[in-house]
Amino acid sequence: MAEAGRRRARGGGGAARRAERGTLKIEAAKYIERNIPLFEILTEEAIEIIEYNAETILEEVGVNFVENPTALARWRQAGADVDGERVRIPRGMARELCKTAPSSFVQHARNPERNVEIGGKTLVCAPVYGPPFVRDLDGGRRYATMEDFEKFVKLGYMSKWLHHSGGTVCEPTDVPVNKRHLDMLLAHMTLSDKPFMGSVTDPSRARDSVEMCEVLFGKDFVQENTVMTSLININSPLTFDEVMMGALEVYAQNNQACIISPFIVGGAMAPVSVAGTLTQVLAEVLAGVAYSQLIRPGAPVIFGAFVTSIDMNSGAPTFGTPEASQILYGAGQLARRMNLPFRSGGGLCGSKLPDAQAAYETAHTHNAVLLGGVNFMLHSCGWLEGGLVSSFEKFVMDADQLGTLHKMAAGVTYDEDAQAMDAIREVGPGGHYLGCAHTQANFKEAFWRSDLLDYKPFETWEEEGARDTQVLAGERVKKLLDAYQKPSMDPAIEAALISYVAEKKASMPDAFM
Amino acid sequence: MAEAGRRRARGGGGAARRAERGTLKIEAAKYIERNIPLFEILTEEAIEIIEYNAETILEEVGVNFVENPTALARWRQAGADVDGERVRIPRGMARELCKTAPSSFVQHARNPERNVEIGGKTLVCAPVYGPPFVRDLDGGRRYATMEDFEKFVKLGYMSKWLHHSGGTVCEPTDVPVNKRHLDMLLAHMTLSDKPFMGSVTDPSRARDSVEMCEVLFGKDFVQENTVMTSLININSPLTFDEVMMGALEVYAQNNQACIISPFIVGGAMAPVSVAGTLTQVLAEVLAGVAYSQLIRPGAPVIFGAFVTSIDMNSGAPTFGTPEASQILYGAGQLARRMNLPFRSGGGLCGSKLPDAQAAYETAHTHNAVLLGGVNFMLHSCGWLEGGLVSSFEKFVMDADQLGTLHKMAAGVTYDEDAQAMDAIREVGPGGHYLGCAHTQANFKEAFWRSDLLDYKPFETWEEEGARDTQVLAGERVKKLLDAYQKPSMDPAIEAALISYVAEKKASMPDAFM
Repeated sequence: MAEAGRRRARGGGGAARRAERGTLKIEAAKYIERNIPLFEILTEEAIEIIEYNAETILEEVGVNFVENPTALARWRQAGADVDGERVRIPRGMARELCKTAPSSFVQHARNPERNVEIGGKTLVCAPVYGPPFVRDLDGGRRYATMEDFEKFVKLGYMSKWLHHSGGTVCEPTDVPVNKRHLDMLLAHMTLSDKPFMGSVTDPSRARDSVEMCEVLFGKDFVQENTVMTSLININSPLTFDEVMMGALEVYAQNNQACIISPFIVGGAMAPVSVAGTLTQVLAEVLAGVAYSQLIRPGAPVIFGAFVTSIDMNSGAPTFGTPEASQILYGAGQLARRMNLPFRSGGGLCGSKLPDAQAAYETAHTHNAVLLGGVNFMLHSCGWLEGGLVSSFEKFVMDADQLGTLHKMAAGVTYDEDAQAMDAIREVGPGGHYLGCAHTQANFKEAFWRSDLLDYKPFETWEEEGARDTQVLAGERVKKLLDAYQKPSMDPAIEAALISYVAEKKASMPDAFM
Repeated sequence: MAEAGRRRARGGGGAARRAERGTLKIEAAKYIERNIPLFEILTEEAIEIIEYNAETILEEVGVNFVENPTALARWRQAGADVDGERVRIPRGMARELCKTAPSSFVQHARNPERNVEIGGKTLVCAPVYGPPFVRDLDGGRRYATMEDFEKFVKLGYMSKWLHHSGGTVCEPTDVPVNKRHLDMLLAHMTLSDKPFMGSVTDPSRARDSVEMCEVLFGKDFVQENTVMTSLININSPLTFDEVMMGALEVYAQNNQACIISPFIVGGAMAPVSVAGTLTQVLAEVLAGVAYSQLIRPGAPVIFGAFVTSIDMNSGAPTFGTPEASQILYGAGQLARRMNLPFRSGGGLCGSKLPDAQAAYETAHTHNAVLLGGVNFMLHSCGWLEGGLVSSFEKFVMDADQLGTLHKMAAGVTYDEDAQAMDAIREVGPGGHYLGCAHTQANFKEAFWRSDLLDYKPFETWEEEGARDTQVLAGERVKKLLDAYQKPSMDPAIEAALISYVAEKKASMPDAFM
């Protein structure tokens, strides 16, 4: 796997001391390019039925574009049947409109080595998005603040297997709602050099996001390149609200990428069956992506699918379940048939703690993401308690686990060295491979090694305090934050960003709704 | 999924009271029959190279059959080149010999509803095998005893998703080594009605196992049917020791099934590369299965592959790693090309505790088992600390997780009901599915539900003690053991088994080596 293992430029004396103190190597792996086949759970017949039914939904039931006369006008103009806010789309029309969307695009980062390609064989991992709470071992569960947000951005920057800085890694509840996006974007732009997401909570905030990118990248660069990938949720079932569509309009007009993503708790926002849910997901994505192409043909978009199952006893959403994995696999197939990049998955779990439940559920989803052809994995790390909590410990635990996906994706090589026939001949029956020439030549790269998990002998482990994964992760969080050094940045650009944020904030009163 | 949900016959008054007290339903799911495709990581070209190289190993390097003149005579007779203990097998000969092994077989249980078919599309789950230690929350880590063993058998009997009672679910270290197998078999035979494994630690103990089965099933039945599946490890690299081969000889002669399984810590007992390891695995299994067919053509055998990776920093074996999954996927392809049932995987992990590490590693392996075509999963549940420890909590945690594999394996149905078009029409844009007719008709079977994991709202969870998975599992262990009721059994057979064990024990002095 190609890895850009470049050491960061050093900062001042304090930073240098911290760097010497720590033993941490800060590396950044390139996004994943799969060299393995995909797992396809749906038969050709099932796909064709789902595709046919999705078109039937668009044609007969239709979708609602709420409080959005411009959107309705666009649809009418395109030839859809618009009745009040209901848009019925003739069979085949949405799929035809979707064809102008690119199958793959590059999202640029301010450090070009961190650019990511989203689509085709790639998998780009981005952290958790949206929780209002944070949790760690010392502080327990509490409302998230901007300080927490910055810590997550720093941890993301230092996580080798994480390719993307994400968006709302937690909701900074101590900052007014109408100004939060400014601080969040400033943190992503200055504390990390990885690509990031823009604000979607209001069309004006999407515009601010574009403007801040113009400061960071230059105005021309932003018009010619994609520098943000933002999350546009569909209000399932079959509803496109004016806030999300307003943000989509801003981004598409500016050639910035959007994930167009049904947000579904199965059995509540979609039918309880996998096939029924996939049908609705497809209808929604067809309508959403088609709409993005009505705004600007060629605008980069991602086929999204965020689907959880539900505990029918309590109504609680459940994660990492077999039905969710089946939907992920199926949605991946549907996305590839549309020739679109695909977003799904994450380190999803329902557990309140980063315990075994959290890890089982997360690993199920991580595995489905890799084999199901996901191109953009949101919530790759740090997600806890059904997305209510960003967990510091789970962030580093999951981020470490992403390394397993890189190694799996690399596939099995079988050149002469990998065949190892000389080694087998050298060692022979009853021998031992540890000392043989082939092992000596290959052992450093042979096996993936966690930077976190415990591989020690029982006695050593016990002497060192019998720490479980959560405790080890808590120590790693502190170690990483202590060793953190800001990536270098043009001071004029940083100053301009800070001014932009200060001016924007001063231009409006605080709002907490 | 077909499930034999039959309630047990009730015992006496105490049992009836316990049954009333408990709210536990004891059910037993049928073994898994996959209705999904498999994941194949090796290209055709890679497979052909590996197969060619494996034959080269057999032909040029050969395998050792140690202290086993009968085996050497059999090989000489078959046309192999025997030089001392080294057996070189001409290209193609081993594969040809393997052709008489069945592609699938039924292992009978004393309760015919628990019979399992091993091979083809099935997956049979058996518990952890071999640890000398046990661990639970109350007692910590300690040497295993016969009392622990019996508890694991009871837990296995009560685990819905576990199809097999297994073998050495822990080593009962308080029973003399030469008598342990008798107590272990008696426990499997009387405390459970699921199929089980025989002893392999000495050929005489394999004979005892067959004799006890003759008491349980009747002599004729045992000669005509497979009633045990036992674990024959190959002493990798390329070595077949006399104890394991002696046990194999007993079982094959009696038409009892054996897993013929290289036991490999990658980089120590095989090359560090995936392709090299697969080549050696194939050579070893070819030789071992061919040998079983020299003993008795048609004897049921399973292509085994137990391969871990290694932490090259410390030499510790590591589990649930991407290399181990790649080898599992590849070995499954090689086994299917031989038309043999395939054994691999388990709830493997290196962690000392049933924590997040344990669950990540276990889930990675469980997922690979399902998609990699494993037919017999040993160590499905309870494995901890690299196989040194049988964990009570992890036993019920993993056993619960096996339910996810059942649901995934069932695949995606897409009949008219599953398409749910009526529901989508009924609910429409902005509606809610919880109350609709389709949901009401399907919600009970729609989503897999854990019997263990926490799905409660945060506040309830906190009020109830903020329990993590390990604590929840500890409570479940107690609940299950408290509610345990012995499955009914012909008292004459039980008495005969007890007499057999007593007489065998009395016939020899205790030995602890």
